[in-house]
Amino acid sequence: MSELRRDPLVDRWVIIAPERADRPQPQTSTVELPLSEADDPFAEGRESETPGELFALRDVGTFPDQPGWRVRVVPNKYPAVRSGKTGTARSDTLFTSLPGQGQHEVLIECPHFETCLSRLSIDQVRDVFLAYRERLRFHRQQQQCAHVLIFKNKGRAAGATLPHTHSQLIGTPWVTSLVQQEVEASQAYWQRHGRPLWTDLLEQEMSDGQRIVQVTDRFVVLCPYASRLPFETRIVPREHRACFGDVEDATLHEAADLLRACLISMTKFHATLPYNLILHTVPFRATHPEVYRWHLEILPRIGQTAGFEWGGGCYINTVAPETAATSLKAAWGPSVR
Amino acid sequence: MSELRRDPLVDRWVIIAPERADRPQPQTSTVELPLSEADDPFAEGRESETPGELFALRDVGTFPDQPGWRVRVVPNKYPAVRSGKTGTARSDTLFTSLPGQGQHEVLIECPHFETCLSRLSIDQVRDVFLAYRERLRFHRQQQQCAHVLIFKNKGRAAGATLPHTHSQLIGTPWVTSLVQQEVEASQAYWQRHGRPLWTDLLEQEMSDGQRIVQVTDRFVVLCPYASRLPFETRIVPREHRACFGDVEDATLHEAADLLRACLISMTKFHATLPYNLILHTVPFRATHPEVYRWHLEILPRIGQTAGFEWGGGCYINTVAPETAATSLKAAWGPSVR
Repeated sequence: MSELRRDPLVDRWVIIAPERADRPQPQTSTVELPLSEADDPFAEGRESETPGELFALRDVGTFPDQPGWRVRVVPNKYPAVRSGKTGTARSDTLFTSLPGQGQHEVLIECPHFETCLSRLSIDQVRDVFLAYRERLRFHRQQQQCAHVLIFKNKGRAAGATLPHTHSQLIGTPWVTSLVQQEVEASQAYWQRHGRPLWTDLLEQEMSDGQRIVQVTDRFVVLCPYASRLPFETRIVPREHRACFGDVEDATLHEAADLLRACLISMTKFHATLPYNLILHTVPFRATHPEVYRWHLEILPRIGQTAGFEWGGGCYINTVAPETAATSLKAAWGPSVR
Repeated sequence: MSELRRDPLVDRWVIIAPERADRPQPQTSTVELPLSEADDPFAEGRESETPGELFALRDVGTFPDQPGWRVRVVPNKYPAVRSGKTGTARSDTLFTSLPGQGQHEVLIECPHFETCLSRLSIDQVRDVFLAYRERLRFHRQQQQCAHVLIFKNKGRAAGATLPHTHSQLIGTPWVTSLVQQEVEASQAYWQRHGRPLWTDLLEQEMSDGQRIVQVTDRFVVLCPYASRLPFETRIVPREHRACFGDVEDATLHEAADLLRACLISMTKFHATLPYNLILHTVPFRATHPEVYRWHLEILPRIGQTAGFEWGGGCYINTVAPETAATSLKAAWGPSVR
């Protein structure tokens, strides 16, 4: 029988219904993003095809918007939000709007044409995480955004429009609702129990054991109790730190290594796995930042959300997180440089 | 510049960002559901391939689970929820679960092999709506469900696994969160303003005008102010009635005709349009059912949700509802029997 589970972080119920996985499955889409290197505006040597560089990790002696970089950050050419003061606002009884202010950046994860983060070297993935931290620190200091969401869309089914491996950053003067809900749940838990929700959550998960993929000195990799999607995975630090901008090098490196290893495990089941990666970090102006803990979420996009999800706001997940964790644990290999 | 809009019914913000529609677009998927009539378990004459009939509109003198039906309702062979008392419950501080109890039915919309509701005759679509109302009345009387969500997944990108045109019904002992939010917003509005939110919402939309697709004596067809998806459309009755089970024949017929006309307009832009159709109706045990109004939602699934949606809970919609409404109005044709 299926089971209805409540997420402890946000007010979200999920139906875990493994029997529905037996439904007749249409063939998997083979339509992928165009894979031509010739059409790649993110490649080294084509810096003039993107808006001007905001940040890069580069070789000594090379210049902005020139070759010689390892990771490069540029403004999104088609921004969802923009800096500046123009735009309309409306505040009727029923209809409320705000100008779409903010920052929208693209983090190009490598100079050569490559579609998978998991095929980059360990050092290269660590550089990507360094760039995440740098941009987060930059926006924290600028004080124009209330919050920054860093995410990655891999593959067409996950919303990517360009195949060259890249992440995005959207900084906004407001806090997105899921992050706000996580902060509020963390705060309510702290008030009630006097300790971080995240500490108890990891303790409970380690005690249950069934959803744990890997445990290291610094991190727990797990498939969350109320996973919305098959093979949904979180990488949660054991150190209670709210902002990813404050993470030390050793922790940052291990987060990068674990993400890479996790993606390699996942691609053993699905070679061209589409997924979203999400970095949740505390809003800059949180009243009690100490209640929160930064973490990574990996959302494989191999199923489809349908009418019940869109009409009811309730997910039906056909792979129990316990099953997903067992498979990922079995597929986990040594991280090779 | 883009605009951030708040939905008046649920606590949901959407970024309307038409400029993002200019992004390089990967080719549209041509992979569709298998279209072989030979594999169609929903066809007339193959009644033994589905679980036993719960309801049908049939010719006089024909028998259940035999040919002679126009619309046929059967239990879902791969249910997300099940009737019965078995299953586990858990209620720790952090992890809460309930048994996946409920009803999951399939409404087969026509006896012959057809993939599009919009290609059915007007009478046939009215029969589908009759079946919706009958099943809703049945479950209302049974008193085992707190709420029934009727929906339709058309096409692979909208979550369908079988191509023969069909709808689904999921009845649950709890109320799904989006419906609950709509009920609460309607109730709060009534308490504050002494009249239905829905009356004022339609009035405001008609006064704004830009998002209206069609207005008839009984209905308003519109693209909602804070549309999550390109070409999202609602069909809202002007008569203030909470439960679709109480709708009279003439109103039911017009709702069916408008849905059919709307889908025909939409397929002028996208011949094999994937979409979800959702029927929102008041929960059976609502304390103040009179605050709510039933309505239909059509969610075309031509874009992809990505990391910002999944990580932030905020939608980025690249087609302004004003643009969508203008296009749909221009494409609207006479409904032909």
